Amino acid sequence: MSHLIRVHQDNKIKEIECNKGDNLLKVLLKNNYEINAYCGGEGICGKCKIKLKGEINKPNKSELEFLDDKELKEGFRLSCLYNIKSNLDVILTQKDDITVMTKSIITEMDLNLDLKKENIYLKKADLRDQRDYLQRIYNKSDTDQIDYSNLKKIENLKKDSEISVIKKKNKIIDIRTDLDKGYYGLAVDIGTTTIVIYLLDLETGQELDTYSFYNPQKKFGADVISRINYTINNKDGLKKIKKTIVDKLNKGIDHLVENNNIKYQDIYKMSVVGNTVMLHLLLGIDALNIAKAPYVPIFTEEINLSPKETEIKINKNGLVQLLPSISGYVGADITGDMLAVNINKLNGINLLIDIGTNGEIVLSSNKKILSCSAAAGPAFEGANITFGTAGISGAISKFLIKDNKIQFKTINDKEPIGICGSGLLDMIAEFYKYNFIESSGRIVSKEKLKDWQKPFLKEYKGQKALKITNLKNYDKQIFLTQKDIREVQLAKGAIAAGIEILLKELNYKDTDINRVFIAGGFGNYINPDNACFIKMIPNCLKDKIIQIGNGAGTGAKIYLLNKNAKREAENIIKKVKYIELSINKEFQTEYIKKMSF
Amino acid sequence: MSHLIRVHQDNKIKEIECNKGDNLLKVLLKNNYEINAYCGGEGICGKCKIKLKGEINKPNKSELEFLDDKELKEGFRLSCLYNIKSNLDVILTQKDDITVMTKSIITEMDLNLDLKKENIYLKKADLRDQRDYLQRIYNKSDTDQIDYSNLKKIENLKKDSEISVIKKKNKIIDIRTDLDKGYYGLAVDIGTTTIVIYLLDLETGQELDTYSFYNPQKKFGADVISRINYTINNKDGLKKIKKTIVDKLNKGIDHLVENNNIKYQDIYKMSVVGNTVMLHLLLGIDALNIAKAPYVPIFTEEINLSPKETEIKINKNGLVQLLPSISGYVGADITGDMLAVNINKLNGINLLIDIGTNGEIVLSSNKKILSCSAAAGPAFEGANITFGTAGISGAISKFLIKDNKIQFKTINDKEPIGICGSGLLDMIAEFYKYNFIESSGRIVSKEKLKDWQKPFLKEYKGQKALKITNLKNYDKQIFLTQKDIREVQLAKGAIAAGIEILLKELNYKDTDINRVFIAGGFGNYINPDNACFIKMIPNCLKDKIIQIGNGAGTGAKIYLLNKNAKREAENIIKKVKYIELSINKEFQTEYIKKMSF
Repeated sequence: MSHLIRVHQDNKIKEIECNKGDNLLKVLLKNNYEINAYCGGEGICGKCKIKLKGEINKPNKSELEFLDDKELKEGFRLSCLYNIKSNLDVILTQKDDITVMTKSIITEMDLNLDLKKENIYLKKADLRDQRDYLQRIYNKSDTDQIDYSNLKKIENLKKDSEISVIKKKNKIIDIRTDLDKGYYGLAVDIGTTTIVIYLLDLETGQELDTYSFYNPQKKFGADVISRINYTINNKDGLKKIKKTIVDKLNKGIDHLVENNNIKYQDIYKMSVVGNTVMLHLLLGIDALNIAKAPYVPIFTEEINLSPKETEIKINKNGLVQLLPSISGYVGADITGDMLAVNINKLNGINLLIDIGTNGEIVLSSNKKILSCSAAAGPAFEGANITFGTAGISGAISKFLIKDNKIQFKTINDKEPIGICGSGLLDMIAEFYKYNFIESSGRIVSKEKLKDWQKPFLKEYKGQKALKITNLKNYDKQIFLTQKDIREVQLAKGAIAAGIEILLKELNYKDTDINRVFIAGGFGNYINPDNACFIKMIPNCLKDKIIQIGNGAGTGAKIYLLNKNAKREAENIIKKVKYIELSINKEFQTEYIKKMSF
Repeated sequence: MSHLIRVHQDNKIKEIECNKGDNLLKVLLKNNYEINAYCGGEGICGKCKIKLKGEINKPNKSELEFLDDKELKEGFRLSCLYNIKSNLDVILTQKDDITVMTKSIITEMDLNLDLKKENIYLKKADLRDQRDYLQRIYNKSDTDQIDYSNLKKIENLKKDSEISVIKKKNKIIDIRTDLDKGYYGLAVDIGTTTIVIYLLDLETGQELDTYSFYNPQKKFGADVISRINYTINNKDGLKKIKKTIVDKLNKGIDHLVENNNIKYQDIYKMSVVGNTVMLHLLLGIDALNIAKAPYVPIFTEEINLSPKETEIKINKNGLVQLLPSISGYVGADITGDMLAVNINKLNGINLLIDIGTNGEIVLSSNKKILSCSAAAGPAFEGANITFGTAGISGAISKFLIKDNKIQFKTINDKEPIGICGSGLLDMIAEFYKYNFIESSGRIVSKEKLKDWQKPFLKEYKGQKALKITNLKNYDKQIFLTQKDIREVQLAKGAIAAGIEILLKELNYKDTDINRVFIAGGFGNYINPDNACFIKMIPNCLKDKIIQIGNGAGTGAKIYLLNKNAKREAENIIKKVKYIELSINKEFQTEYIKKMSF
């Protein structure tokens, strides 16, 4: 059953037909309305608020968190949580120009593959039609190249029957007789700490499944430098570190294949993002030169390899495609981010920050794109923090001081077991806000604290520390220590200084920036206000922050599904100038300055 | 030192500068003069006769065979044997339009490869130039693709030094440090009976070496049908028959590599012609369906495979390229022939006959090309003939009856050991001419012979036979038997009938034909007059015969050296209509008719 919605914006009305059950946000985005939906339509950010008239659905539980009674009465709802069940008037009051970004994140990605599956009928030859069988297949599938394994298959094909041809451009890469089965692709994001594999249906572009896991190379070192050192200092180190990741990826593929009832032969393409060192190690290519000046990798270009060359277990005629990187320290993950936000099409001045083990920063104007990598360290990924942990069940992910009391939320509402990046950032901000911490980062002495504050000040293993939890089992108590604060200062200082250097290089001020995209798993969960409050990001940009989630992964998906992404990435990279912070004299000065809150 | 030659033709004079020692025929062909040189400039056919004025070289021994005293005095010489040593006037009297053919056979072939070798300087990176090493190589060599093995090589390249890049289009297929070494290609002609491998320098297009040998598959059967039967009737027959040829080709490559002091890694391309069955067996692809109606092969298209897929021992990033075929019984060897004579550019009506184990026939007009395959049998290759042999030392290759006596010539002037194809054809023609044989093919009875003839009539193993040799050792005597004559009748009848069918199909008469190209090893050595005299070829075409030698091999070389050959072959094949003689009712009638002399 179809419904009519009438969208009111700027005194204009547009009528849109839609189907019962359609998601309102998706309908609006599809029709080129600009809706803020920073969280990706997950009902988490509450930004996609719109006003409805007509037979409005009752608000659901999540909406109640973001809308007060007055708003509810007036007909406000969250469009991302609203499924259309009647004719409606939709009143838009927002004004923004982030269409491009939201589109690339939320709407279905353009499907424009150089892979295609065609079902064709293979007619049997007779004396009136002596065409050879390859020709019959070529003609029907509009191809003219074939490899040996598929040529050999033709012998045993049942004639006068239907077959299925998978082609890449004009080349047959598979001939199948299981006509009803699909064909699939993988988008892979290899982070220093975590790896995500997305399984996509290449016929529809739909994301079918995701599998994420720790990078197994972490046993060789937490950061890229220590892993490179491992390859230098150990016999066959490079081979071993390569095998570790390849084996784990293949296990991930096994899992996805099993979970989705497909065969690994049905996977024909894998696009990979990751920082430059991760991509070198994935291929078993020496990354030594990235670790020492002049920090030059063997490759940054797009690399196209066969599954055999990479030892990745997908169809042997498939393709493993590494997205191009920018430099030794600004990798293909950042190319992915830039594709995700469609950086070349954005007007104004845009800042992109991908916070992982390193903090890569990109500043773009219409003419130029600058990039740098700030050695933020893995603080926000839970490493080097006393009670640090990744974003797992029980990690404190949100933290607030309210009415002289601590409030926090753990992932999956489990008993607290540690602090993950977003929680850590909240803690620093809140404790600084309530003067537990000086702007230098020092935890104040007891005398300077008010009475309600005093109980929070403790010692932990000889260090000043702030008590977070109030558990009965004191042994499981969680603290934020002075050293933890220093770690965060190092991390946020590096990022803030990196931003400053890029701004100076282009002669802009922070107030000139129109949008700040924050990418990376951590970046998606932080409270942007707090990131600005501790001056990791200039405070004036508070209302311009857009959290894009795993932009690198989104970029990999775009690359997987759209053959034009290659050219787009090339165009972007051509414009990018890499600024080497390690030899930048101003950077050290700025770094020290920016460590304060 | 340079000399000036003045070429006179049709009242026009052209001056050409050339170097001392230049071959006159090559100079003339290079300057687009049309010179008959059917033997390919070998001094064998005597057709490239020209008249010279000036300080003329003395005639050499070969020229004396073709020129009488009067001609010598007038200044006639064979241009193919004439090396320029002074200024000359050259008077051309010939008129013909076979430029295209001679050009493709004799002049250097157009070198237009998609492979290229570039020596580039690999600069070491520094902090002012942090470009990665792959990018340095891509930029300097104008490439943007690389495979894994070469990517991996970059690690260990000495920086600030020169390297050599072999590229195929925009892809790097090899990186080398032996800058002065060349790069090479192979053109291979796989006949049912013999195989030829040509080694060519891809930098200059020059043919460096040739290696020929019997097709080792002959142990599985002399003709294509018996080989296909072997693959059906023996366990792993297809695998074995494939391995036999691949191993032998690899040994041939070993030989060429050693003989020319190169490495097999320096060979980057191999182009292969052969009949359709030979190409299937080379790849281990089932040819069963070619043997039985409707005679449909698995493939006739151009096939591009990696050396690994074919198990051929050339550089692993190289290419093994099979030329496209026309049908199950008109193979890529005939495509090669058609490329060699540039059939699409010829005006008028042209007949092409490739006589090997089968006789493939092509008839072309401007609009259409017809082809068929006449099951001539291997008589002309020495098989099924009592004293038959291939063209080896001691084979009788020419035969003549003069002054009531037999004269013959053996290859390399050795003691006669047997009869090869050209000798066989001569014998039939001469014995028929002198009425030893009736037009029905029957050896006449003794009574009908003149006295001088009678001693030649003998019996051999219960059959009527004609004595060829007069050796002291009677055991080594050579005979032409009645059965041998029948074999030749079958062979020549099939070819003559095939020609007739194609002519009828296009509504032409034999007198309409402008040129007859004879290809194939055997075809190059036969006496065309005799071929016409026994009516294998219509007698009216006697003066229109052009022997092109191994046209199939020439086609393979063209394909190897010129990337445009692919399109040319496609254009040709698109025009070719294949006529299946086995289901042609008229063919059987014609066949029986044409068996008579």
